[in-house]
Order: sequence, then structure tokens, then C-alpha cells
Amino acid sequence: MSKVYEYNLRTKKEGEFLDITYLVEQALKESNLKEGIVVVFCPHTTAGITINENADPDVVRDMLATFDKAYPKQGDYNHSEGNSHAHIKASLMGSSATIIVEAGGLKLGIWQGIYFTEFDGPRNRKVYIKFI
Amino acid sequence: MSKVYEYNLRTKKEGEFLDITYLVEQALKESNLKEGIVVVFCPHTTAGITINENADPDVVRDMLATFDKAYPKQGDYNHSEGNSHAHIKASLMGSSATIIVEAGGLKLGIWQGIYFTEFDGPRNRKVYIKFI
Amino acid sequence: MSKVYEYNLRTKKEGEFLDITYLVEQALKESNLKEGIVVVFCPHTTAGITINENADPDVVRDMLATFDKAYPKQGDYNHSEGNSHAHIKASLMGSSATIIVEAGGLKLGIWQGIYFTEFDGPRNRKVYIKFI
Repeated sequence: MSKVYEYNLRTKKEGEFLDITYLVEQALKESNLKEGIVVVFCPHTTAGITINENADPDVVRDMLATFDKAYPKQGDYNHSEGNSHAHIKASLMGSSATIIVEAGGLKLGIWQGIYFTEFDGPRNRKVYIKFI
Repeated sequence: MSKVYEYNLRTKKEGEFLDITYLVEQALKESNLKEGIVVVFCPHTTAGITINENADPDVVRDMLATFDKAYPKQGDYNHSEGNSHAHIKASLMGSSATIIVEAGGLKLGIWQGIYFTEFDGPRNRKVYIKFI
Repeated sequence: MSKVYEYNLRTKKEGEFLDITYLVEQALKESNLKEGIVVVFCPHTTAGITINENADPDVVRDMLATFDKAYPKQGDYNHSEGNSHAHIKASLMGSSATIIVEAGGLKLGIWQGIYFTEFDGPRNRKVYIKFI
């Protein structure tokens, strides 16, 4: 059974998709796993994990802008910290992604990247990675 | 290989987030698993599973109110049971959560709780828990 | 450790939920797994995987229509391919589903089906299935 890999992240904007595919690949290499699955987990409640296009940065821009419009920062919220919009977006993205490992590599589609989705940054964050 | 843990839940409102972290912790203790992952699965199509803040109940209130506004109960729906909004919200939350287990404990963030998200209650519901 | 099962899919509409439960059951039978989990993974960025009602086709119709309204094809998007709405919907559904396997069968609820959710079809697509 492999250990849990933990990495520190630093987000730089309030809303930001951080491509962490290289971190998952680095952990996979260290783990020496050849076949199985990997769980990428976000231990925060105003950020999440998603898989989406890694090529045109406008895709991420469009996603962030659309979520901001659908779930604006200012709204009919009771939560006094003022970040309910970020909690909502976090649950919509989900707190983890599961990816298949085959022949020692991540079995992602050619356009897929693994993103840490920040909705209440900038902040110091963590991500956990576990291989099975 | 551990068994599947099944628990009965009773939701009390039409829309409700039930904190089931203690159930997952109870099953983990019984399973005696030290390292691995746990899958928490909702076998219903008008409810789901999400991970979000466990501290201020206003976060859950804001999430439910925002989803009600974005996906209202009355809408341009064909489904005759009148709960299309609940099916939509269920898919947005997802039918399961996967959490890492380390040193015999759930490796959650300090503010994270595991929620059964009811969107068409009150009802008798079930949740399945499996350790790997 | 079982192999990764890969299947080709052909979607026929721009937006479509393809019920692939039978494919997952077929792979499960071939794998001979009795107890564990299965990960169903979509290697595309404008399609996803979700679990929802398998009985009344109006549920899927209502979900697709509601997502089209909330995240329309024409919008304030920069991405030049014109399918940002599909990338957004893909992340909302998620790129995978995890289901528990018990006694050689999928431990789904009675109304649950596993859907490949196309948002930018018609296209040739793939789905990956891995048992643990």
C-alpha cells in the first residue's frame, strides 16, 4: 500500500484553475505503481478538483466567468464570511477526481488536465494524492 | 476485502444536507482499515453526496437556497413526477464521494464534513460505504 | 489486477445521455470481480459521466434542457471553438463515476443508470472501465 502524497499549492487569484497534472505524474513515478487508480483530493471547502481542457486557457477563463455569473460573490447569502459562492462552486466541481493508471501512466484523454479549482484565493492550499 | 456497510437515513425536509461523517467514521472503525480509500455512495436519483463545510450551518442554507433559485421546483419540465429539479441537483452533487484513509482515520480537511444531500424529501434513504 | 476495459461509443445528438450501464455490467462479468469498486472514466473534456434515473426518458430530457438554459451555447465566451458550454457542463457532471461491486454485481439503486453525458456531439467517443 502506497503512502499519501501531500503537496503545498499557492494560488494567486480569487478564482483560478491550477493545472496539477505534473504533480500527480510526479507522485505516480515515485509510487512506482503500474496498474490501478489514483485519487486526487482537495481538503478545502472553497476549492475543488476537476478535469478539463489543458490546451486553450480560454476554456478555463470561460468556466470561471460563467460560474461567477451563475453564482455571484454578492448574493442572497447568510454565511457571514462572504464566500458562500466559493462553497457552492466547490461542491459543483467536487472534492476529488479519480483517474485510471495503466502501464505506469495516467490514462487521461489527450486534452485532459487535472485542475485544482480555487474559488476563494489567493491562499496557501494542499492537495492529497493516493494510489490504489 | 471488507464488506459493504449500509445505513438507513431519514431526511426531514424537502431539501436537506445530512452530515454523515460520523457514520463513515463508525464504519471505518468497524472495518479496521488503516490505509486506503473509502467510497460513500448514494443509491438514489434525487439525492447525492458532497463534501463541504461542517462548521457554520449557514453555508448549507446558502447552498440549498442558491440551488433552489438556479434550478427551481417549478420549471419547464416534462417529467410527470414533478421532481426534475431534484434529479438535476443530484447529478450536480454527484452520487458518491471518495476519501483517503490514513492511519485508521479519514484524511479530511479540518472544515470538511461528508453530506448526504436530499433534494426530494422527506424520505427514508440509504447510503452504502465501501473500503478499499 | 484486472485490465482496463475500453469501449467505443457513438453519440447521435449534440446533447445526449447514453445509458452505458450494460457496458459496465458486461465488463464486470468478463473481469470476474466479486467484491470491490469500479471506476467509469470519460477521457473527453466536452462530455462526462453521471448516474441518474433510468426509467422515464423525460428526466434526461429535462436535465439537458435545463443545462442548456443555464449554460447556453451562445454566451460571453472567449474560447474560439464555440463549445465552452460543453466544457462547463462536462465539469459539472464530472469525468468519472465510482460504483461499488458486491456479489459480482453493480450495487446501484433500483432507478439508477450510468450515463455517458455528451454535450458536444455527435461524435465518436470512448469510455474506460477499471475494477479494483
